[in-house]
Amino acid sequence: MKESAVKKIAVLTSGGDAPGMNAALRAVVRTANYYDIECYGVREGYNGLINGDFLKMGPRSVKNIINQGGTILKSARSMEFKTKEGRQKAYDHCVRLGIDGLVCIGGDGTFTGAKIFNEEFGIRVIGVPGTIDNDIFGTDNTIGYDTALNTAMDAIDKIRDTATSHNRVFFVEVMGRDAGFIALNSGLATGALDILIPERKDSIDELFTNFRNAEKTGKASSIVVVAEGEKLANVYELAEKTKKDFPDYDIRVAILGHMQRGGSPSCADRVLASRLGYGAVTGLMEGKTNVMAGMRSNDLVYTPIEEAIKKHNEINKDLLLISKILAI
Amino acid sequence: MKESAVKKIAVLTSGGDAPGMNAALRAVVRTANYYDIECYGVREGYNGLINGDFLKMGPRSVKNIINQGGTILKSARSMEFKTKEGRQKAYDHCVRLGIDGLVCIGGDGTFTGAKIFNEEFGIRVIGVPGTIDNDIFGTDNTIGYDTALNTAMDAIDKIRDTATSHNRVFFVEVMGRDAGFIALNSGLATGALDILIPERKDSIDELFTNFRNAEKTGKASSIVVVAEGEKLANVYELAEKTKKDFPDYDIRVAILGHMQRGGSPSCADRVLASRLGYGAVTGLMEGKTNVMAGMRSNDLVYTPIEEAIKKHNEINKDLLLISKILAI
Amino acid sequence: MKESAVKKIAVLTSGGDAPGMNAALRAVVRTANYYDIECYGVREGYNGLINGDFLKMGPRSVKNIINQGGTILKSARSMEFKTKEGRQKAYDHCVRLGIDGLVCIGGDGTFTGAKIFNEEFGIRVIGVPGTIDNDIFGTDNTIGYDTALNTAMDAIDKIRDTATSHNRVFFVEVMGRDAGFIALNSGLATGALDILIPERKDSIDELFTNFRNAEKTGKASSIVVVAEGEKLANVYELAEKTKKDFPDYDIRVAILGHMQRGGSPSCADRVLASRLGYGAVTGLMEGKTNVMAGMRSNDLVYTPIEEAIKKHNEINKDLLLISKILAI
Amino acid sequence: MKESAVKKIAVLTSGGDAPGMNAALRAVVRTANYYDIECYGVREGYNGLINGDFLKMGPRSVKNIINQGGTILKSARSMEFKTKEGRQKAYDHCVRLGIDGLVCIGGDGTFTGAKIFNEEFGIRVIGVPGTIDNDIFGTDNTIGYDTALNTAMDAIDKIRDTATSHNRVFFVEVMGRDAGFIALNSGLATGALDILIPERKDSIDELFTNFRNAEKTGKASSIVVVAEGEKLANVYELAEKTKKDFPDYDIRVAILGHMQRGGSPSCADRVLASRLGYGAVTGLMEGKTNVMAGMRSNDLVYTPIEEAIKKHNEINKDLLLISKILAI
Repeated sequence: MKESAVKKIAVLTSGGDAPGMNAALRAVVRTANYYDIECYGVREGYNGLINGDFLKMGPRSVKNIINQGGTILKSARSMEFKTKEGRQKAYDHCVRLGIDGLVCIGGDGTFTGAKIFNEEFGIRVIGVPGTIDNDIFGTDNTIGYDTALNTAMDAIDKIRDTATSHNRVFFVEVMGRDAGFIALNSGLATGALDILIPERKDSIDELFTNFRNAEKTGKASSIVVVAEGEKLANVYELAEKTKKDFPDYDIRVAILGHMQRGGSPSCADRVLASRLGYGAVTGLMEGKTNVMAGMRSNDLVYTPIEEAIKKHNEINKDLLLISKILAI
Repeated sequence: MKESAVKKIAVLTSGGDAPGMNAALRAVVRTANYYDIECYGVREGYNGLINGDFLKMGPRSVKNIINQGGTILKSARSMEFKTKEGRQKAYDHCVRLGIDGLVCIGGDGTFTGAKIFNEEFGIRVIGVPGTIDNDIFGTDNTIGYDTALNTAMDAIDKIRDTATSHNRVFFVEVMGRDAGFIALNSGLATGALDILIPERKDSIDELFTNFRNAEKTGKASSIVVVAEGEKLANVYELAEKTKKDFPDYDIRVAILGHMQRGGSPSCADRVLASRLGYGAVTGLMEGKTNVMAGMRSNDLVYTPIEEAIKKHNEINKDLLLISKILAI
Repeated sequence: MKESAVKKIAVLTSGGDAPGMNAALRAVVRTANYYDIECYGVREGYNGLINGDFLKMGPRSVKNIINQGGTILKSARSMEFKTKEGRQKAYDHCVRLGIDGLVCIGGDGTFTGAKIFNEEFGIRVIGVPGTIDNDIFGTDNTIGYDTALNTAMDAIDKIRDTATSHNRVFFVEVMGRDAGFIALNSGLATGALDILIPERKDSIDELFTNFRNAEKTGKASSIVVVAEGEKLANVYELAEKTKKDFPDYDIRVAILGHMQRGGSPSCADRVLASRLGYGAVTGLMEGKTNVMAGMRSNDLVYTPIEEAIKKHNEINKDLLLISKILAI
Repeated sequence: MKESAVKKIAVLTSGGDAPGMNAALRAVVRTANYYDIECYGVREGYNGLINGDFLKMGPRSVKNIINQGGTILKSARSMEFKTKEGRQKAYDHCVRLGIDGLVCIGGDGTFTGAKIFNEEFGIRVIGVPGTIDNDIFGTDNTIGYDTALNTAMDAIDKIRDTATSHNRVFFVEVMGRDAGFIALNSGLATGALDILIPERKDSIDELFTNFRNAEKTGKASSIVVVAEGEKLANVYELAEKTKKDFPDYDIRVAILGHMQRGGSPSCADRVLASRLGYGAVTGLMEGKTNVMAGMRSNDLVYTPIEEAIKKHNEINKDLLLISKILAI
C-alpha cells in the first residue's frame, strides 16, 4: 500500500444511538492500529469535538464491546456545532492534536455536520451510516437497522400471542419518523393486516376495508403496524376512529418505543459495522474525503456524502404489494 | 390408586392470558388421558361454558403447544357468568355432557367464578394460577410470571443501552395493576435507581432525593421502574414533575405494555404449568374441590380457593431494601 | 397482467431444513391464491412427488407458520428421484393433478433434481434458495442463513463468557460442509482469534502464530471458529495438536450442531422468504422456468438454475483480512 | 443494627462459572459498601487467595455487570488450596490485609475448601451457591441454574424444529455430571420422549419400549434428553444401540456443551444472586460462619455448610412420572 493520506484520526458517534455503533468503533480503532494510524475517540459526538473531549484509543480500549448495544463514546445532538464558532473550536482542537481525518458514525444530521466541517476547514471526513431507521442512501442497510427489525418483530410476535388469545385488534407503533422501513419489514415479518408508513398516502377507508375483508375470511384478531411518522393519524387516533366504526372490536394500542434502539447487535449488524469501520479507515488512508462508506450486495462502496444526505433509500413498492397479498 | 372421584372433566382458560397456559392445558389433557378420564376443552373461558362451546381433547390435541404463548382455547372475561342465569346455563351444559370436574386456569376473577359455581351447583372445581401478575396466594409463583419478568427485564436492558449512551432518565411502566411483583423484580434485576409499586406509599421527594444522590455518585443515566398500578402518579406525570425540578434532565417514558403477556414460556413456567396441570387432575381424582393447585419450594400444595382469592402474596420487604442498597 | 403461464402449481421443501422455509411456503400459497392459481403442497420433498403425497393448500393452511422454524411440509433427501423411474412416477402424479408448475425450496441438490425434472418432462420449475449454508449463486443471502448466523453467534457469545472466566481456548465447530460463510461471519461477529474455513488453505503454523501473538497482547482466552468442512483438521484434532505445542492451555471443544438449523426465523429471513416465495409464483406466471428466484441488493432477480448450481457465492477475501485485523 | 461481626471482607468465585455470579458479586460489594464494610475481590478463586491477588472494590467496580455472564473476578480450580501450605499462604494474606470474613461463591468443591479454611484458621466464611447444576442442599435453586435451563431448553426447541421436519430421533446431552436437574427440567419443558439421569437406574429396554409406544401413537420424531453423568451409556453409545434395534430411524446426536454455562442471567437468577449476595454480607455481619446462604420459598435461609455439601437436593420423583405421562 502506498503512503497513507492520514496519520492521526478521530472517531465519534452522533445522533440517535444504534446497535452496532460499538462494533464500528472497534473496527475503526483496530484497523487504524493495524496500519499504524493514531486514533482518538471523541466523547458525546460533536460536543466532544468542540470541548476537546478526546481519548487516545488502542486495541484494548475496544475489547468486549462488539456485542454491546449503545455506544461507549456516548452520543448527543450538538446545537453548538451548527454554529461557525462551535466548528472553529472543534477545528482548533483537531489542529492542536494533529488530527487529519475524522470518522463520523451516525445518520443524516451527523453527515451534514461532517460535510460542512470538511468544506470549511478541509479536514478529511468520512461517514459511517449508523441509525436504526435505514433512511440513508448509499448502503443496502444502515448499522442497527437489522437489530431493530428483530427487536420490533419479537415484540410484535409476543403481542400477537395475546391478540390471538383474546380476539383483539392491536395498533402497534414502531420507530421511523420519516421512514417506514422498520414498519414495513417488521409488519411483513409478523403478518400484519395493514402497515401504515409515511412514504405512502394511507386512507382510513382502505384500513377499514381491510378489517372488513379480514372478518370475511374468519380472521379473529389483527395487528396493524404503524410507523411513528405516519401522517394519517397516530395509533391512539387510529384506535379511536376504528372503535367508532367497529364498536365490537376489542382494540389496544402498543408503542414499542426506545427498546428498539438497544440490545446486543445482530450478526448482520456486527459484520456490517466491522466492514464499514474498516472501510472508513482504509478510505481515509486512500485519500477519500466527504464520502460515506456503505455496503451494497456485499461490496464496499463509497458515496459522496452529499448524495447520502439528499437521496433516500426508497421503500420497495413490491414490498407493499407483497405485504398486502400475504396478509390475507 | 383407588377409584377416581371424577370421570369426565372440562378445562378452560380465563382472564388475561399468560405464557404457560398452553403448557398447563397440555398437562391437564394428557394427565386425564393417562388416567382414563375423558377431557373437554372449553373455548373462551366461562363464555364457552355458557354457550356450550366444548371440544373433546386427546393427547394429540395438545401437541406442539408447550412452547407457545397465549392459549389455544382462547380467553375472555365473561359478564354473563357473573349472573345466576349464566351459571345455570353453564351447569346445564356440564350435566348434559356428564362433566363432573372443572379445571379453571386463570387468576383472581377466574377463581371467584369457579368458587361460586361450585357452591351453587356442587360441581368439583380446581384452580390453576395462570397470570403474569403473581398476585395469587398459595403458590410461590403463578404461571406466566417468570416469563413476564424476563420479557420486562430484556426490554429494560435494551432501554438501558440507549439511556446510557445519551445520559438519559427513563420512566418505564411495567404491568401490575394491583401488584408490584413485576416492577420490583425486573427493577432489581436491571439495577433501577428507584422502583415504584402500589404496595408501598411512595413520595416524589424520596424519588428526587434518589436522583440527587445518583448525581453525587456520578451516575449519568437512570431507569425508574413503575408498576402500572402505582398510586403516586403515572409515568407521564412522573416525567413531567421530574422535569420541573430537574430541567437539565433528558427524560423519556416507555410503557412496555402487552408484549409482557406473550412469548414462548420460560423453562420454569413450562415446568410449573406441567406440574400444576398434573396436580389439578390428580387433585380432582382424589376428591379435592374448591382448591387451587400451587407449588411451594418445589412441593405441590393445595390451598382452599377462598384463601387463594382473599389472601395475597406479600411483597418481600427485604427486596425493597435490597433494591435500594444495590442501586447505588 | 396478461394471462398466467401456469394454472395449478405444487410446492415442496427438500434437503436440509432451514428457518424461513415455512415463510416461503406461506408466500407461495397466498400469492397463488391471490392470483387464482391452484396450489398443492407436497410432503417430504421429492418423495412426496413420487408417492403422490399432495395436499391442497389455501390461505388458511399456512396461518401462524411465518414465525416457525422447520417446514410443515417436512423435508427429506430422495434417492428414488435420482432415478428415471422415480421421476416418471412423479411426473405422472403431476399430469394426473394437472400441475403445470413446481416451486422447489431447497439447496443445490434440490435444484439439480428440479433441473433434470424440467429437462425430461418440460414441466415448469422454479427454485427458491432455502439453506443455512448460503452457498447458492444468484442471491445475496439464502433463506435461513441469517437466522443460523445469529444462532451460532449467540452460542459463541455464551461460550466466550465461560472462556473468559476460566482463561480457556475453545475450538467451536459451526455448520458448513463445503462453505465457510457461517464460520467466517459468526467468527467475525464474535471476535474469534482465528477462523478456519474450507475455502482457504489453512496451516497449523499460522494458527499457532496467532496464539503466540495473542499471548503477547495479553489476551488470556481465545475462540477459534472452525467450519464443519475445514480440511486442515477437525476440532478434536485441532485441540489435540494445540495441546502438544501449548501444554499449559486449558482447551475445550464445542460442536454447535443441529440447533443451527432450527429456531424462529429472523426478520431478514422472513422478509427474504416472503419475497422469494412471491417471486417464484409470479415468475412461473410470467412463463419463467428452470430459474431460481434470488434477491440482490433488495432487488428480485432470476438466475438460470444451472448457474445457481454450478457457480458459488465466493467468500469475500476482504472479510478474511478484516477478521484478522480486528481480532487483535 | 448492632455492631457488625466483620469489618473487612473478601469475595471470590470458584469452580465452574455460572450466570449470575457477577450479580452476586455486585450485591456483595454494594451491600458491604452500604454497611461501611471494606470489600476486596479475589481473582481466580482460591488461587488468588494464595497468591495475594486482591482488588479493592467499591460500588463503581461492579457497575454494568448485573447482566453479564461469567465472572469478572475469573474462576479456577485450585490444587494448591487442597494443601495445608496453600491454605496457610492464603490465611497469611488475609491476616496481612485484615480480612475477617470471606464470601465464597461456587459449588460443592468451593464450599469444602471454605469449610476447611474456616476450621483451620477460624476466619469467618459464608457460601453462596453458584453453579448451574442445582445440586446443592439448602436452597430451592442455585445461581445460574435457571439460566442454564432456559439455554438448554431454547437449544432443544431449535433441535426439535429440525427433528420434526426430518422425522428424526435426537439424543441430546445436557450438563450435569452428578445431577439430573437440567436434564429432567429441560426435558420436561421440551416434551422429550425420555429423559435419562444419573439419579435413576435407567434401562435400554425401557427406552426402546418408549420408542415403540411413540411409534404406535404416530409420533414421527423424538427427542431423548440425557444428562452428562448418565450411567447407562453416553449419547453416542445410545445412538448406536438404538440404531441396531431400529435400523430405519434417522438418529442424530447433539451435545449442548459449554454454552449452557454462559449468557446473560435470567431475571430469576439476577434476583436470587442479589438476595444471596446481600444475605451473605448481612450474615457475616450478624456473626454467622460456616454456613451457606440460600433461598427457600422466597425466604432467605442459612444452612450449615457441611450440610450443604453432604446432603443433596433430591430429584422430585413426581417430575419423573409427570414427564413420562406428558410425553405421550
